Amino acid sequence: MIDKEKKFLIVGLGLIGGSYAMGLKEAGYTVYAIDVDPDSIAFAKEQGYIDAGKSEVDPALLGRADVVILGLYPKTMIQWLKDYQQHLKPGAFLTDVSGVKCGVIDQIQGLLRKDVRFIGSHPMAGREVSGVFHSDNRIFQDANFIITPTQKNTQQDIDFVWDIAEVLGFLHISILSPREHDEMIGFVSQLTHAIAVSLMNCNDNTHLKEYTGDSFRDLTRIAKINENLWSELFLLNRETLIQEIDGFAAELQNLREKLVQGDEKGLKKLFIQSTQRRKQFDRTY
Amino acid sequence: MIDKEKKFLIVGLGLIGGSYAMGLKEAGYTVYAIDVDPDSIAFAKEQGYIDAGKSEVDPALLGRADVVILGLYPKTMIQWLKDYQQHLKPGAFLTDVSGVKCGVIDQIQGLLRKDVRFIGSHPMAGREVSGVFHSDNRIFQDANFIITPTQKNTQQDIDFVWDIAEVLGFLHISILSPREHDEMIGFVSQLTHAIAVSLMNCNDNTHLKEYTGDSFRDLTRIAKINENLWSELFLLNRETLIQEIDGFAAELQNLREKLVQGDEKGLKKLFIQSTQRRKQFDRTY
Repeated sequence: MIDKEKKFLIVGLGLIGGSYAMGLKEAGYTVYAIDVDPDSIAFAKEQGYIDAGKSEVDPALLGRADVVILGLYPKTMIQWLKDYQQHLKPGAFLTDVSGVKCGVIDQIQGLLRKDVRFIGSHPMAGREVSGVFHSDNRIFQDANFIITPTQKNTQQDIDFVWDIAEVLGFLHISILSPREHDEMIGFVSQLTHAIAVSLMNCNDNTHLKEYTGDSFRDLTRIAKINENLWSELFLLNRETLIQEIDGFAAELQNLREKLVQGDEKGLKKLFIQSTQRRKQFDRTY
Repeated sequence: MIDKEKKFLIVGLGLIGGSYAMGLKEAGYTVYAIDVDPDSIAFAKEQGYIDAGKSEVDPALLGRADVVILGLYPKTMIQWLKDYQQHLKPGAFLTDVSGVKCGVIDQIQGLLRKDVRFIGSHPMAGREVSGVFHSDNRIFQDANFIITPTQKNTQQDIDFVWDIAEVLGFLHISILSPREHDEMIGFVSQLTHAIAVSLMNCNDNTHLKEYTGDSFRDLTRIAKINENLWSELFLLNRETLIQEIDGFAAELQNLREKLVQGDEKGLKKLFIQSTQRRKQFDRTY
């Protein structure tokens, strides 16, 4: 367990940062926050998510934090660390929440002061809405938390961020290398978003609104997407994502070919395989 | 409203046929059924979904039915009508439940006795499970019902099947030509199933089970698919479906191209468009 005297600082108080703050406060920790938006800070204070917060970088606040959660977009986070790391408390522990790892962790571990520790982690939770105003730490209850250590990290780093994930109530905590993480995320998250976006964009189908059932709604739910965050995530992982798109597109062409050939037996085989595989993904809890 | 003395016969007592029987019985009608599976008939009788039923074609039962609901797969249905239409009551009213229309209605209206009436209709409802044992007429409550008349149909035919849909409690009843219906279904239903199946099949991703969130589960839910029914539906509508696959594949390639070029602005445009369009599909009821 993490010492109750530890003080947390959330940098970037959006949906995830705000939900971290909620969970940490509920667990009895002191939580500070920094966000460029004064309304976000004011709201979080009113709701009791944080003990103190600033809409500009306050060296005194940074200097008091034992643990820093970087809730910023990847590029902004790297710039922020370059600009303000001199104010961090000696020996401070840092982690992030970003959805891609390879392009991010290398840079951070390369530029960081030697007396502070950083380990990458990814809370696989979210909502279709963004901003601290929609914070809800219950989103962690059925979510995965992935820790992505490098050779620069110690077992102590891993244990510490593992404990944070436990405090926040994540269902499942696991460890992957940054490369394994990005390959996994390229398939289960980025490819699915690329498909949903393309399905929504491939023709102006809004006149079909009254005919759509749950299938279409389910497949396109995630086509509502934060363009600033996701364009960054896609481009940071583009080699992997391109490879996943190619694999999927080839499989779709395979199905198309069965249609062209009128190959009923071949189609059935595809349907039997997808049915069998999908059954293994049914939630058992 | 439909005269309470009318007697209904369901031919093919699967999930949809069984759910029709439930709804019609609840509304106070006499319901008969024919299905090759004796267990399905026995179950439906026990549950009170039907008044009488047979697991072989009984000319006497056919001769008593004023309204026949054909709940068979398309090809089986056409063959069944060829074999048994001589037993239908003079002036009987027929409709089907199939998911494609062009390839089905023309054949049926071409082969049918002149003294009976047939109009195509499509209840856009279903579950991930099949068979009469999973019948549930509540699946109609938030579903669309599409009537697909041809020039051979009268306003009286349309009104009659409209009344059936109202008795069954469909949320939204509308009229489309068979061609319009098949184009719509090619996009909102068949393309989505083709995508889900291909996503599930494109690599053996079962090792990623523990990392998948709701996005992947939502996109692949319909990859559990009845191979016999869906291979028939896909092939009966294959020109349209191939066209829809091509449109979607081109859009996915467009997104891929933005990745290759590192075109952040272009990606954002795609995400903004998909977000705006998808918002119009949010349920408002």
